[in-house]
Order: sequence, then C-alpha cells, then structure tokens
Amino acid sequence: MTALLLEMVDELRKDDDAVAAVGVGAAGTVEWPTGRIRWAPNNEYRDWNVRAELERATGLPAVVDNDANVAGLAEARLGDVRYDHMILVTVGTGVGSGIVLDGRIYRGPHGLGAEIGHMNVNPDGPQCGCGNFGCLEALASGTALTRMGRSAAAGDPAGMIATLAAESGAEVTGQIVTTAAMAGDRTAASLFARLGRSLGIGIASMNAIFELEAVVIGGGLVDAGELLLAPTRRAAREFAYAPSARPIPPIVPATFGGDAGKIGAALLALEDAGEHQGHRPEPTP
Amino acid sequence: MTALLLEMVDELRKDDDAVAAVGVGAAGTVEWPTGRIRWAPNNEYRDWNVRAELERATGLPAVVDNDANVAGLAEARLGDVRYDHMILVTVGTGVGSGIVLDGRIYRGPHGLGAEIGHMNVNPDGPQCGCGNFGCLEALASGTALTRMGRSAAAGDPAGMIATLAAESGAEVTGQIVTTAAMAGDRTAASLFARLGRSLGIGIASMNAIFELEAVVIGGGLVDAGELLLAPTRRAAREFAYAPSARPIPPIVPATFGGDAGKIGAALLALEDAGEHQGHRPEPTP
Amino acid sequence: MTALLLEMVDELRKDDDAVAAVGVGAAGTVEWPTGRIRWAPNNEYRDWNVRAELERATGLPAVVDNDANVAGLAEARLGDVRYDHMILVTVGTGVGSGIVLDGRIYRGPHGLGAEIGHMNVNPDGPQCGCGNFGCLEALASGTALTRMGRSAAAGDPAGMIATLAAESGAEVTGQIVTTAAMAGDRTAASLFARLGRSLGIGIASMNAIFELEAVVIGGGLVDAGELLLAPTRRAAREFAYAPSARPIPPIVPATFGGDAGKIGAALLALEDAGEHQGHRPEPTP
Amino acid sequence: MTALLLEMVDELRKDDDAVAAVGVGAAGTVEWPTGRIRWAPNNEYRDWNVRAELERATGLPAVVDNDANVAGLAEARLGDVRYDHMILVTVGTGVGSGIVLDGRIYRGPHGLGAEIGHMNVNPDGPQCGCGNFGCLEALASGTALTRMGRSAAAGDPAGMIATLAAESGAEVTGQIVTTAAMAGDRTAASLFARLGRSLGIGIASMNAIFELEAVVIGGGLVDAGELLLAPTRRAAREFAYAPSARPIPPIVPATFGGDAGKIGAALLALEDAGEHQGHRPEPTP
Repeated sequence: MTALLLEMVDELRKDDDAVAAVGVGAAGTVEWPTGRIRWAPNNEYRDWNVRAELERATGLPAVVDNDANVAGLAEARLGDVRYDHMILVTVGTGVGSGIVLDGRIYRGPHGLGAEIGHMNVNPDGPQCGCGNFGCLEALASGTALTRMGRSAAAGDPAGMIATLAAESGAEVTGQIVTTAAMAGDRTAASLFARLGRSLGIGIASMNAIFELEAVVIGGGLVDAGELLLAPTRRAAREFAYAPSARPIPPIVPATFGGDAGKIGAALLALEDAGEHQGHRPEPTP
Repeated sequence: MTALLLEMVDELRKDDDAVAAVGVGAAGTVEWPTGRIRWAPNNEYRDWNVRAELERATGLPAVVDNDANVAGLAEARLGDVRYDHMILVTVGTGVGSGIVLDGRIYRGPHGLGAEIGHMNVNPDGPQCGCGNFGCLEALASGTALTRMGRSAAAGDPAGMIATLAAESGAEVTGQIVTTAAMAGDRTAASLFARLGRSLGIGIASMNAIFELEAVVIGGGLVDAGELLLAPTRRAAREFAYAPSARPIPPIVPATFGGDAGKIGAALLALEDAGEHQGHRPEPTP
Repeated sequence: MTALLLEMVDELRKDDDAVAAVGVGAAGTVEWPTGRIRWAPNNEYRDWNVRAELERATGLPAVVDNDANVAGLAEARLGDVRYDHMILVTVGTGVGSGIVLDGRIYRGPHGLGAEIGHMNVNPDGPQCGCGNFGCLEALASGTALTRMGRSAAAGDPAGMIATLAAESGAEVTGQIVTTAAMAGDRTAASLFARLGRSLGIGIASMNAIFELEAVVIGGGLVDAGELLLAPTRRAAREFAYAPSARPIPPIVPATFGGDAGKIGAALLALEDAGEHQGHRPEPTP
Repeated sequence: MTALLLEMVDELRKDDDAVAAVGVGAAGTVEWPTGRIRWAPNNEYRDWNVRAELERATGLPAVVDNDANVAGLAEARLGDVRYDHMILVTVGTGVGSGIVLDGRIYRGPHGLGAEIGHMNVNPDGPQCGCGNFGCLEALASGTALTRMGRSAAAGDPAGMIATLAAESGAEVTGQIVTTAAMAGDRTAASLFARLGRSLGIGIASMNAIFELEAVVIGGGLVDAGELLLAPTRRAAREFAYAPSARPIPPIVPATFGGDAGKIGAALLALEDAGEHQGHRPEPTP
C-alpha cells in the first residue's frame, strides 16, 4: 500500500523538484495529526501508520487526514464562496463529511473527525457497510441507490433500469440508475427523490445542531445535479427546526467536484508545513 | 414576563446586596450573546429581548442563554468529573442539549446553539411539539413517555398504568409511567426501554459526529435512574460507529440534577462579567 | 339521522312507486346482517340500529352494510370486468375496503367486515383518526395528503401548494395538493408518489395474504389518475412476495367511481330481499 | 428429494399395513390441490410436483399442502378449543400462517394460501429471506432474533448473550438468545419484547382484516412462553382497531407444538381421501 503512495510521490517529484510537502486524504477513520488510519468501513486496512511511513520514506513533511475533511477545507477556503461554518457532504459509495467551524476542520478530541454519514436516521432501516442499521449512508449513498435500483428493477423487469442493466450484461448499479434518471425515467428519478429526501432530512438535523452558512455537496452522485439537489433542498426545508430563527442555508454543489480532496490535501500540507511543524500532540491510544 | 424576572432579582438582592451580575437560562432558541429569545417550541414568547430589559431594569450586567447550554457548562466545569468535550442532554418535557467543545459551550455562528433534540430520528415518526415529525424529542422526552403511556393504557385498561391514572382521576402522564416503572410494572419498564433505546441511538449519532468524553443526562426523567440509563447505554453501544476507534463514552447522570441550569447561569454571568463585557458582537438578524 | 334517511326514501318513492327494498352503505364498522353501525373513526354515531329503524319506518325490507363492502360488490359483479376474488380499496378521507372472495363480500364471523385501512404499516408512524399510529389510512388517505401538503408548504412558502392555499384564503388541503399535482407541480406529484408507494406496499401485503384477481381503487383520490396509480403499481410490484408464483394482479380504477356505493347497496338490497329474507342470524353482542 | 419421502412412507407401511393415504405439509408456496411446490424463500426447490410423484410411487391417494396450513387445520379442529375463524402463526426460522375461515383452510383462488409472514410492516426495514424489506418475518422470526442478538452482543461483549456464544464456540443464534432470556438476562428479554411487539402489531392487523376467534402461536420460538406471548398480547391490544366492537381474540400457544403439522397433514389426507377424490380442479398455471 505504502509502495503505491511512494511511487506517486516519486512521479510528482520527477515533474517538479520543488515538492515541499505531502498531503493525503484517505477514506475512513483517520487520526489527526498522527495520520494513522484506524479503521474504514469499506476496505481492509486497520491501524496503518501512513504519515510516519511517508515521512520516513520521502524525507518530506506529510499530512494525512480524512478525505472529506480535506475536501471540506478546500471548499470552505478556496471555493466559489468562502465559508467559516459549513459542512461538506460527499455522496459517493458512502457518505462522508468535513465540518468546518470558525474556518477550521472539526476533528474532535482524538482527531478522528466527524462522521455524519453514520448518524442514525432509522434504527430499523437497511444495514450499512459499517455493520449498523439505518445510518444516513445506508439510505443516501451510491450503495443505497444500487440497492433501491435493484429492488425497483425486480418490480419492473421491462423498465428502463432493468433494461439498461440487461444491455450492459451486469447487475443494476447506482450508475445505471443515474443514467436512467438523466434520460428521463420516472422510476429512476423517484429513487433520487427518496435518496435526496433522506439526505435533506440529515442536513436539517445538521443545521439544528450546528447552524451553518452552507452545505456543500460533493462526491460522484452530485453529477446528477438537480435530480439530487432539488429533493434534498425540499426535505431540508420541510424538516427545518425553527426556520424563522435558523433558516436552512444554501445547499450547493462542490466547486471542485472530485478534485476537492486533492486540493484540500495540498492546502493542508502547505499550512501544516508552515504552522504546526513544531508541536504535534501525541496520539491518543 | 420581565416583571416576574425582576421580582426574583429584587428578592435575591434583598438577601445579599453583593449581587454582581444576573444569569438566566431559558428554554428555547436564545441568541447569544444578545440574550434575545427568538423562538420556543413549547411556549408563546417570540423575539423577547430579555438581556437588554434585565440590564436596563437592574443596572447589572446580565447574560441570557439556553437552559441546556448553561446546565452543560455547570456539569462540564463543576461536575464530579471535569470534561472538555461533552454533551449534556436534558430529558424533561422536551429534549435539550448543551454541547461543550474544548471547554466552551458550542453556540454556532449566530449564537443560537445546538438542538440535538430536534435531530431527526424517523421522518415518518410521531409529530413533535416543534411541528416536525420524528425528532429525537418526539421519541425520547417526557412528552413521548406520556404518549406511549396513554397508548399502552388503552391496550391494557386493567394494567398498573391505567389503574394509577384512574386513581389519580386524571389522564396518564409521564410521571405516572415513571411511578409504575419504579414500582416494578413491566409494561412501564418496557416504555422506558423504548425511550432509552431512542435516546441511546441519538447519543451514538452524537458520538459519530463529535467524539465525546462523556454524555451527561439531566432533566426530570433521569430520576428514573437505571430504568432510563441502562437501555440508553445498551443502545448507544449497539449503534456505535467504529467502536474500536471511537468507543461510546460514559453516559452518566447529571451531578447537579435540576440545579445545573441555575449554577451554570450564575457561572456564565460571573465569567462574562469579567471577560466579555467589552466586545459583544452585534446580533445577526 | 334516521329522519334524513327517511326523507330520501320518501323522495325516491315519490318518483317511482315500485321501490321494493332499501339499501344503505355506511362508513364505519357496520354489523352484518343486523345493519347496526357499531363504531366509526371519523364521526360520532355509536350503536345505531339503522336497519331496524328503516324497516319499521318504511315497511320495506332494508340492508345496511359498510360503504366499501357494497362498493366492492358493485365493482366485482357489475364492473367492466367481473371478478371472484378482488379487493376494492377506497382512497378518500380515509381508506376503506371491500373484500370479495368467491364472489361474496367477506364479512367475518360477527359481520364486521375487513378494514385494511387499519392494517399497520409503521408502528412509529403518524397518528390515525382511529387513535392508533401508522395505519395504512394514516399514510395513504386524503387526510395523509393534507398532512404531507401542509408540511411541504411550510418548507416551501413560495411553492405552488402554498400559493394555491394562500389564494384560496384557507389552509392546505388534499384537494389543493391534487390540483397542484395535476397542474404539473413536482412537489405535489412527489407527495402522490409517497402516498401511492404506501398504498402499493399495502396492496402487496394484501396479495400475499389473499391472492387476488384484481385490486380496484375507488374514492375521491382516484381522480388523480396515474399520479396515484403509477407509483401504487410500482410499489406493489417492488414489494410483491414470490411474484413468479403469485404475481401482483391488475390495479385498476373503479368503474363506477363515486357511484359504486349506491349501486352496490341497491344490488345487495335486491339480492337480500330475494334470497336471505327468511334466515337472518342473530347479531353477536 | 422424493426418494426420502418414499422411504418414510415405506417405513410407516412396514409398521402398519392399513396406511390409507399420504399427507404432507411443506414449507413454501404450495399449490392446492395439485400439491406442487412452486417456490420457497429458504430453500432451493422450484416447481416440484410432489403430490403426483407420491401418488405414482405409492399407489395411495396423497395430499400436499403448506405446513402452516395443515398445522392450522389441526389446531382449529383438534386443539384444546375448536375454532371456526382463526389464524395459526408459526414463529420459527420464518413466520408461517394458516388461516381457517368458516372451519376451512383459506387457500385463495389458485390454492397458494395466505402468507402473513410477508405482510409488510416497515418498507424501510431489514431485508427478509424472500428478498423484500420489512416483512413481518424479517422482524418477528427466529432469523430476526438471531440478527438482533448479534447486534446486541456486538454492543455488549461482556453480556450474557455474547458470553454464551463464546462458550459455545459459535456465533450468536436465536437459540442462544432464548437461553439467555430464559435465564433472566434483561437484554435478551428485551429482544423478545421487540420481537413480540412486531408480532402483536401484525396480529392486530390480522384482526382488523378478518375478525378472529383466536390466534394460535406455534413454531420453535413459542417455547419461550410468556417471554414471547406477553409482549405480543400487549402490542396486539395496544394496536387493536375499534376494540369495543372487535376485541383482540385470545392469543394462545399451539396445542400440538411441533407435531401440529404432522397431525394436520394426516387429518387432511383422510378427509381428502374421503371427500374430494372425485373433483380435483386443474391447476392454474
């Protein structure tokens, strides 16, 4: 694993010998500032000390943080609008989040960060990749779209979702549902409406907890545009708490799309190389 | 309304002429630091400028904050154990919350604070006092206990809950359910188990978002002790996200019980009188 | 109440002196064959002996049955297609049902009939007019549409639903949601999609229990046509049990619309006058 | 498969040469009276023509019906109390049902029978063995108990459920949860309370549809006695529709326990050999 990262670093240094620091955004529970990946719901690595290995091998200062955290930093600092209090929600295979409060990533006392994708929205709901039942991720991710798409195709074998899957010679995926929805299929659009509704309700909860200036939506599913965003906004407003005092903030697509993670990791690496070099706290066990 | 507060202040000053500041903890959405009550789900006042009125009438510096916020401050700073990262959850008529991060109350950019009681836990759930459906408060408050108790009594007119209500000549209340549960009634205990399960699931969500050192439970229902706390802890652990990396913290009853609000309001008044007097930000509209 | 019925009978006899029998279809729990209305969720009468009063006052044989029962009979016997095993589901203020098995109305051992509108589809769901939580009626009736419409309008005060209500000078009703949906409003259409989804899931359950040749949808909301029927059919097929062996039957609008009740009551009166006159069983207490 | 059945028949005929007919009760969707197994959620066979094969091989008249159907017949006709309108619900690996109306098994127009275990009770609920989400079987069967037990053990690794599983060297099963509950473990008892609550709500729905004289509970989990039955009865009464007119009937354990299926299959074989020999309808495709 580390070998692959080192190869990428070498590649970049070949192009530009002014590389001054390494920044990594990784899926899963990453301990800050030690850069240790503790656990991840959708892959195998456990307690991988990425930052230390990178620094030793490259001789460069490195930072390793959760991918949604660094994407959130990029969006808050360098996006079309600057925000001090925002959440980036990535809607891809899973649901990730980067919470920026007072201009800084919220990481919690042990540096493990915020995981709004695993906020429970229905304890009797479908099982999540993390093992629990009814996480936001289980209802509002690409994985959820795949599950709903398969169920819908089973109910309508002549419909567009089932037909597209048959043509592709494979099972229904979230991508196929997205294609069908963008081609005007009402069933596929209704699945986005259900997904967006769950997402919007989660966002309403986030605003009840945090008061936000914006919610920025990233991840692969945001390519579906208004198919995802319109029902999300509708549900967030419908479930807003005390909206006369704390209105639902703008819910906007990410400025940098899939590149937000890379940009944010670089931004964090540069800042950290400058500011924090001297005083890294010890990791909590 | 203000008249009642002023009478209380006068009363206190009669006893002790060294009163140096006034601190108020109020239910509802209170704007910090202006001390304006913006909205409240369970009573009528709207946009009441409490702090300004108190300062004008008493000539003393005053602070007005959400009641769970100040109770949280008291528990975090002066409770049996000191915490830097904790949530106080009050379980009374409603569900309130005070979030302490890095030793300070989290209030959000406009000072309206955190309302975890209105985090959605089931969008098809029962209606909440705030108008939405399926808030944590709608499933895990005294109001929820009353609703569940009435439904259970309707299903079992000869049971202890119905009998106690008949003896009291009134409808079933949360208090009657509590009495029955403490007297060993299994139906009443099962209602606490359902309530605690919802509460514990909400706490698991909070820990996925914040990483906490403790969750402190206050409010009237905590008098039920383990009847409430045991199922709460069980559900929080059952729904913990990535518990090997971020275990569920201790879930403990409040040190100060019903007095936490008063103590915290005084603590805040004293601190504020000292520190923040000079630079109050303008309220956001 | 009886006076009103008698007036109608007199009116009809004035026009046609060959009136041979009286047939009544009434909302609520009607005991067959005694024609006693035992209880009704949405109005006040309790234990009203309608049939006996009518027979005494008119000197004619009378039958009184649940309104959905007689509407189901009309649809099964006289509709565009004849069925031996079908359910009529009326979707109006409430959700009623008439189950026809082997060509006869299913009435149960005490003649109280089938109430699929009060089948539970979500025990933590919204409260029903009957007092329970999460009945099919609470999620798939005009009352549910009104509730969802008000919630949606609160979340989108500039939307078509809220605008139509403001123009009419009244609160949002199911009728306003229907108007908005038929005028192309996506929010209103999405409420029909949610309502139809609940209805379709209920129908899938019915088919798992009964095996049906058809499900006929009557009541006021069927005027919305495919807005209601398309999501209903989709969900019924999605949630079909063992569909290779027991496919979801056709789900079709009622042939007689709002007149099915009258036609069925007359049909029942004529049949009963002929066949069953001699051997009325005693009512069960 | 047929070989195994034939061996059993031979065995029985060796003991008693007066064997006059063969009766079989089989899990899954069995077509009556053809005795063809069409589909089954928890095993592999599809379209197995059991009755024809048995009759050909043995030269005896045979009947093959759904196992819960024949168990229901045994309980209704030969149980401690005789019923004309009842449901037998078997709570084992899955949830089966035999509905007896007017003293006869309800089988539907194509003879596939009633499957109340696949009535939907929460469309966002956990996945069922049949592929759907939120069937009664997914919430109120031994499979559900296993799932809940594993989740509870994960949340409480030192609890009795986890301990018993560790001692047995295997994963948590419903049997282990039952053992723990009967030994007084409160967590295990609370899982039975949740299971029974779902079952009771399903029974309340059945009574709203059918009006019943009794609900008889069979299957392996009924061995847990009041641990299962008390919360079932409580929830059925709590969710009863119009209970003044249609009260929840007695909910009682099966008279014959695990033998009800055998007894009912024999009863059906004898009756059928006598009565129906001449006029078997053709199967519907």
